[in-house]
Amino acid sequence: MPPPPTPVPTPHVQDHIAALKARLLALGGLAEERLGAATHALVERDPATLDRVIAGDAPINQLQMEIDGRAFQILALQQPKATDLRTVVAAVKIATDLERVGDLAVNIAEAGRRYLRHPPVKDLIDIPRMADLAQRMLRDALDAYVRHDAELAQRVLVADDTLDDLRSQVFRELLTCMLASPATIEPSLDLLLISRHLERTGDHATNVAEDVIFIVSARDVRHHAGGPPPVR
Amino acid sequence: MPPPPTPVPTPHVQDHIAALKARLLALGGLAEERLGAATHALVERDPATLDRVIAGDAPINQLQMEIDGRAFQILALQQPKATDLRTVVAAVKIATDLERVGDLAVNIAEAGRRYLRHPPVKDLIDIPRMADLAQRMLRDALDAYVRHDAELAQRVLVADDTLDDLRSQVFRELLTCMLASPATIEPSLDLLLISRHLERTGDHATNVAEDVIFIVSARDVRHHAGGPPPVR
Repeated sequence: MPPPPTPVPTPHVQDHIAALKARLLALGGLAEERLGAATHALVERDPATLDRVIAGDAPINQLQMEIDGRAFQILALQQPKATDLRTVVAAVKIATDLERVGDLAVNIAEAGRRYLRHPPVKDLIDIPRMADLAQRMLRDALDAYVRHDAELAQRVLVADDTLDDLRSQVFRELLTCMLASPATIEPSLDLLLISRHLERTGDHATNVAEDVIFIVSARDVRHHAGGPPPVR
Repeated sequence: MPPPPTPVPTPHVQDHIAALKARLLALGGLAEERLGAATHALVERDPATLDRVIAGDAPINQLQMEIDGRAFQILALQQPKATDLRTVVAAVKIATDLERVGDLAVNIAEAGRRYLRHPPVKDLIDIPRMADLAQRMLRDALDAYVRHDAELAQRVLVADDTLDDLRSQVFRELLTCMLASPATIEPSLDLLLISRHLERTGDHATNVAEDVIFIVSARDVRHHAGGPPPVR
């Protein structure tokens, strides 16, 4: 008689969730890399890299769909409860946020491509600073999700104010340029647009951080400040 | 002996989903109303209404949290499957999209407030047209969600191209104004911003429409065009 087959243990819901988190981290890493590449290429006036960012959105989109598929599988087959349930539903939302960050990297590269048609308006100091901060916010928000770290998530919410301040500063400087010299209007509009895309990247990191606080505390932090922050 | 108590029927999962849909329609109605009010007040140069939009975000935020709560209850207690599961998870995503439309209405009102400090740059024709279209897209996308109507959802995706064309037209006209007269730069930037907020409203309607197509067909339509549409 052959020996009985070794039983294969059924993966526990925690294993499925760990795999889901790993894929979200991979998606976050891709989005962050593309954002960094687009901004760096803008500063270095490197059209080839901008074109590469514009053309290379497919892996992010595929990974988002894979994450959606995994999350729906867990919901349908494992019936998670409480914190696990919130973690899995949040994964669907977070994957959407990260995919949009990938779109914003494409938008930044497109605006950068137009910007490079003109002579430089000014030294780009605050825009790369915004990009660094937005990337760090994304990374922290995802770490906070993986570790269920509400304190780290709170720090992301605070960093978003700094990002908004940087964007206001970019706005004022570019307005001054445009008023002084009409030739700078068109390229300045692209820089303004890029600063807005970076601010929106921070908004997506903020969404992730708010989801984390909701998962950990089952408390909704989204709406106690009374309305969205002013945007200009 | 007293008569036995009449058994209270337990609501079926379909009843819970119907209630969830009704609340989403209410949320969509609120978001749409505020968007219309902000744009109308901009055209009519009516600061009091703009202030009312800026101050009145709380009901939208509360309704979003209520919808989240209902959706999580259904997931935890009813364990919906297949189309029902996708419908309930989509409700959480759609509520987020609608809440952001409410935020965009506030952002439009804030930009409108600044715009009113200056003499009018031009007759506002295309911006109210964009607002009408964005409102219709939202309404259609939600109807498509409630009725699981993939064909109507497809029409929302098509309408988004028209909205993008209108915004490009607004951009070109305002750029011409700014180049011709530096005094129009500052107010023109607020009109550009408003047109961008309206375009993003259309993006949120598009997100809802894509969720509908995913629910109905379990087919992912989000990523076959190869990257996001160009933005400027």
